[in-house]
Amino acid sequence: MDHPARTPERQAFYDRIAPGNLAPLWEQLHSLVTPAPVPRAEPAIWHYRDVRPFLMQSGHLISAQEATRRVLMLMNPGLGGQASITGSLFAGLQLIMPGEVAPAHRHTQSALRFVIEGRGAYTAVDGERTTMEPGDFIITPSWTWHDHGNDTQEPVVWLDGLDIQIVNLLNASFAEGYPKDTQPISRPEGDSLARYGNNLLPIDWKPEVKTSPVFNYPYARTREALASLAKNGAPDPYHGHKLRYVNPASGEFAMPTIATFVQVLPAGFASLPYRSTDGTVFVCVEGSGETRVGDTVLRWEERDIFVVPSWVSHTHHAAAESVLFSFSDRVVQEKLGLWREARGNA
Amino acid sequence: MDHPARTPERQAFYDRIAPGNLAPLWEQLHSLVTPAPVPRAEPAIWHYRDVRPFLMQSGHLISAQEATRRVLMLMNPGLGGQASITGSLFAGLQLIMPGEVAPAHRHTQSALRFVIEGRGAYTAVDGERTTMEPGDFIITPSWTWHDHGNDTQEPVVWLDGLDIQIVNLLNASFAEGYPKDTQPISRPEGDSLARYGNNLLPIDWKPEVKTSPVFNYPYARTREALASLAKNGAPDPYHGHKLRYVNPASGEFAMPTIATFVQVLPAGFASLPYRSTDGTVFVCVEGSGETRVGDTVLRWEERDIFVVPSWVSHTHHAAAESVLFSFSDRVVQEKLGLWREARGNA
Amino acid sequence: MDHPARTPERQAFYDRIAPGNLAPLWEQLHSLVTPAPVPRAEPAIWHYRDVRPFLMQSGHLISAQEATRRVLMLMNPGLGGQASITGSLFAGLQLIMPGEVAPAHRHTQSALRFVIEGRGAYTAVDGERTTMEPGDFIITPSWTWHDHGNDTQEPVVWLDGLDIQIVNLLNASFAEGYPKDTQPISRPEGDSLARYGNNLLPIDWKPEVKTSPVFNYPYARTREALASLAKNGAPDPYHGHKLRYVNPASGEFAMPTIATFVQVLPAGFASLPYRSTDGTVFVCVEGSGETRVGDTVLRWEERDIFVVPSWVSHTHHAAAESVLFSFSDRVVQEKLGLWREARGNA
Amino acid sequence: MDHPARTPERQAFYDRIAPGNLAPLWEQLHSLVTPAPVPRAEPAIWHYRDVRPFLMQSGHLISAQEATRRVLMLMNPGLGGQASITGSLFAGLQLIMPGEVAPAHRHTQSALRFVIEGRGAYTAVDGERTTMEPGDFIITPSWTWHDHGNDTQEPVVWLDGLDIQIVNLLNASFAEGYPKDTQPISRPEGDSLARYGNNLLPIDWKPEVKTSPVFNYPYARTREALASLAKNGAPDPYHGHKLRYVNPASGEFAMPTIATFVQVLPAGFASLPYRSTDGTVFVCVEGSGETRVGDTVLRWEERDIFVVPSWVSHTHHAAAESVLFSFSDRVVQEKLGLWREARGNA
Repeated sequence: MDHPARTPERQAFYDRIAPGNLAPLWEQLHSLVTPAPVPRAEPAIWHYRDVRPFLMQSGHLISAQEATRRVLMLMNPGLGGQASITGSLFAGLQLIMPGEVAPAHRHTQSALRFVIEGRGAYTAVDGERTTMEPGDFIITPSWTWHDHGNDTQEPVVWLDGLDIQIVNLLNASFAEGYPKDTQPISRPEGDSLARYGNNLLPIDWKPEVKTSPVFNYPYARTREALASLAKNGAPDPYHGHKLRYVNPASGEFAMPTIATFVQVLPAGFASLPYRSTDGTVFVCVEGSGETRVGDTVLRWEERDIFVVPSWVSHTHHAAAESVLFSFSDRVVQEKLGLWREARGNA
Repeated sequence: MDHPARTPERQAFYDRIAPGNLAPLWEQLHSLVTPAPVPRAEPAIWHYRDVRPFLMQSGHLISAQEATRRVLMLMNPGLGGQASITGSLFAGLQLIMPGEVAPAHRHTQSALRFVIEGRGAYTAVDGERTTMEPGDFIITPSWTWHDHGNDTQEPVVWLDGLDIQIVNLLNASFAEGYPKDTQPISRPEGDSLARYGNNLLPIDWKPEVKTSPVFNYPYARTREALASLAKNGAPDPYHGHKLRYVNPASGEFAMPTIATFVQVLPAGFASLPYRSTDGTVFVCVEGSGETRVGDTVLRWEERDIFVVPSWVSHTHHAAAESVLFSFSDRVVQEKLGLWREARGNA
Repeated sequence: MDHPARTPERQAFYDRIAPGNLAPLWEQLHSLVTPAPVPRAEPAIWHYRDVRPFLMQSGHLISAQEATRRVLMLMNPGLGGQASITGSLFAGLQLIMPGEVAPAHRHTQSALRFVIEGRGAYTAVDGERTTMEPGDFIITPSWTWHDHGNDTQEPVVWLDGLDIQIVNLLNASFAEGYPKDTQPISRPEGDSLARYGNNLLPIDWKPEVKTSPVFNYPYARTREALASLAKNGAPDPYHGHKLRYVNPASGEFAMPTIATFVQVLPAGFASLPYRSTDGTVFVCVEGSGETRVGDTVLRWEERDIFVVPSWVSHTHHAAAESVLFSFSDRVVQEKLGLWREARGNA
Repeated sequence: MDHPARTPERQAFYDRIAPGNLAPLWEQLHSLVTPAPVPRAEPAIWHYRDVRPFLMQSGHLISAQEATRRVLMLMNPGLGGQASITGSLFAGLQLIMPGEVAPAHRHTQSALRFVIEGRGAYTAVDGERTTMEPGDFIITPSWTWHDHGNDTQEPVVWLDGLDIQIVNLLNASFAEGYPKDTQPISRPEGDSLARYGNNLLPIDWKPEVKTSPVFNYPYARTREALASLAKNGAPDPYHGHKLRYVNPASGEFAMPTIATFVQVLPAGFASLPYRSTDGTVFVCVEGSGETRVGDTVLRWEERDIFVVPSWVSHTHHAAAESVLFSFSDRVVQEKLGLWREARGNA
């Protein structure tokens, strides 16, 4: 797909057709349809020890109430100021100070919350509050009322992941505020997990949406599953022991637009080169190590967040036994028939 | 979701965190998560009588061989030079002159071809050639070798629709050229339609992809189905008699990333106001009339192409009995749980 | 799984527990859980030239009205008087004389009709009448009102296939008569085929049942598809050119309880040995030949009906180019994870 | 659907056609296609206090080894000696004595085991052993090697539920013995539950069968889920708090041929009349009460097993807080589009 020469005659033609909202494809074909992914997103890491002071400063700069959501966005340096950590996904760190409430609203964007620091804040979804512990993976589904609050004495921080660019590409954003700061509570805490999260489902219940009815996947249970796997067999050479969070009503990913994963890497484990078309955001939940992404080395420890762009080969090296949470748009790519992976140096 | 004031203290903070690839969400929340879709795409129309002369000029300006694909892109005037007709979809008019070949290649982008002018050119897909007649809807699926040729004495023009922006948002573009201009032919013409297109499927065949195995939906059969519907009952007040093209292996849309439709509007029919979140490209196949999109009136006749952006209320008014082909990203939005529609003035 | 000895002590025990509705599994295990299928159904054939005189006699013996359905059941000789042609399926030949009506009713049993003789009778389903031509495959879905009539001057005969034994095993039979002999007609003939049968579906239609919305698969179109296949390539060594009828809304079999197929065997074609767990009923639509089922040779010509039991190896030998329609419970077995096949002498 | 008169002329005709394997449908239509289900199965109960002595006697009468499976079948008194508890399902009580092994084999019939008495026996499935505790629901999937053993000092008893009649109707039974009494163990105990049972699934795992990869649903977790539901809200008037066991890979029932349920009825709870087409086997796991089935009153206490036939209205009355496990062929009926239910006296 060579680029045809732009002769003066051709340029004159391009100028002539432009007012008619026409342009020659052959001038752009090579950049629109590339031989392989050319992600503008770059490998990058946010060390929590560096970001935390800024977060705490933001806690004094603006209230959760005024900000609606007091979030520092993680801006991928390759994306030129676009509010994204990968080409399609948003990530940010949200802070709620003691006594604060992030007021109830809903929007068509789906969000995940992955708790980084502090225990005991809550997220309310659809009439049920869940207490947030470090490592918990919490979903606020598309078009569902949700609010957050912190009744503890400590600041609470979590990672937000949203499908903002996907929804915007499709021009499908809707949002509205709730008349009050918090929504009424109609179900006891833990009801969703009891009802949907034990390989049992209510006899007459049919899912109406594509998002998991379990909206808090507690780290305690996840960690126990990972520990069993690590004890029971050898790690996969590319992934260690890696699981994906699923919607128990379908076996699909937990969210329709964001795929989420968790993996444990044994101490000293070094993965073989791997790449896939879903640019991925990782959080180090436990342990420490480094991830080599192309020529870049990202050294991570607990609470650090880093990103591996689409189709860049990378390896993980765990200094200590490490747990990584991650998310990407793989679920979207699989639905559209676009997702690819390659193992080794292929 | 009011915009918090940007005090000097806050601005200083924003400047301080920027080098760490951090930025405040609350400054952008209102534009990232909008109360309703705010498409940048505008209603627009391309009259074929205006575009055709440019197309024919392009036929002398560059060969299909040199251009790879000789396509004039339909550039939505609201999208500032982005190669798109809606926020997510590409459209262009492709010309093949007598004796030319558009050389074989494949890419992960899916493409539809809707024949506008000329009969008898061919598209080859996966070892089978299909002859292209006006009104035929032809698919070149993701990652499938395809080439086009024109062995007739007349220029042939069709509309291309592709999912370029979707694939690019996901950083999932792969493409390669075939070693020769045309691929070898291994199956007789019509084999796919005979094998998959008659409410019968080969006994041991399992689909491996999400795209329809029928790759030419001939207008002759489609028109006959529309005629029966028009004869058999009253039109839907919003759509007239409207059908969607389906993949007979699944009943889903014919393509995994682009939804395609065809509808007949009786002479004199005026539809009631309707809007949906999938910005839609229409082609007038037969008849004439106008579509009112918000305050804009688009008057169309045969072979004209026009676009209705996401979530803008519109009505169709058919002067003569009219057939409209259309395509949008509805299939993607449905898979992601994002698609909405509203009837009447709601 | 040897059979344990039945000692007097054991027999005494069996007698003692019997009044408590208890019995020893080990006495029956070998017959309940067999190493391979042990079908009681036998290979059998009904030559139409032999059956037709009886059918015509029945036309004078009882009216369609009095009989509700004037059907001669095809009784598999191995099944001891059970109204079945295979272990799970019913087959019968239905006659409607000129001027007669088989009155409207509905039942949870699904039925297929395959037209054997006479053209121009009708089946009405859900408000639409379809004219029945030889070779047409017609469905009267579960719990749908249906009636049949013959306004021609000739007797009309078709094969009925029903899932009676399946419904009865599950104790799920419901039936009721319609207050009148014929149901009211609300849609023109051909409406369902036009609406659902052309790789297009109505934009807002969602299937509510698992049965195909196309209820007549006309032989003319089916035959044309078979002819293309036969012209386009070599036959499968086990099946010739074999297709399955599908529900265009899902790509599944056309009926949820009965799988239907059609195949063309070239003149002189001899298939290799094949067996599967779905006992199958065949109808010779065109041509002549024989099918060897184990040690039995079934010689068939047009309109003959024959049955191959579960898991018996068989081969087809076509004297002339032949078309075979067939049906079985394969769709049920596939849904339950039970279906198996073996090719060659395995 | 009246029964036509059997005149001498007609009888002569029936006699004449019988040798041709033909018979008149109209003589049997009323019994083959009934207006509502006419189950031959009757309401019945097996009190464990009555059955247990026989079970223990069987322990001395025959070894598990000789019997292959030492099971007393629960013979529905209405089914005339057919090895079934409902029209389609088999149930039996299996005993394994200390030190015994029920040798490894596999068959296409799917089986469930519901532990009634004794703790610490094991079932091995596909290389993993699971310890069996009272109330555990254990699956041995179709065509999977399985063996059972008892290394404890006490007899162990569980309820077996199998789809024998379904497999036999379809003529799809295959079975074979394993060369040794026990299969080799390749995975630690608990591996399947850790890997598949926590709303997480291995990243590269795709299910190959329709049965749940979780093969032991421990009662401890099930009971905890029930307790939460009972605490969190009011019981459903027909079911109390009722859940269905699901396959976490699909959200479907845990087994493709047998649906399984568990429900808790508060002390004093009386359900409203309910009926459905799936004849159902209940086990009282905790508590006591009675179930009124038509005119029959079945009084149950812990470990009792009772059956409610298809389409018979029934109510549950719990004396103490009670837990009922149950199973039926509902999953089959739903797949075939046949399942119905009615609430109240409708």
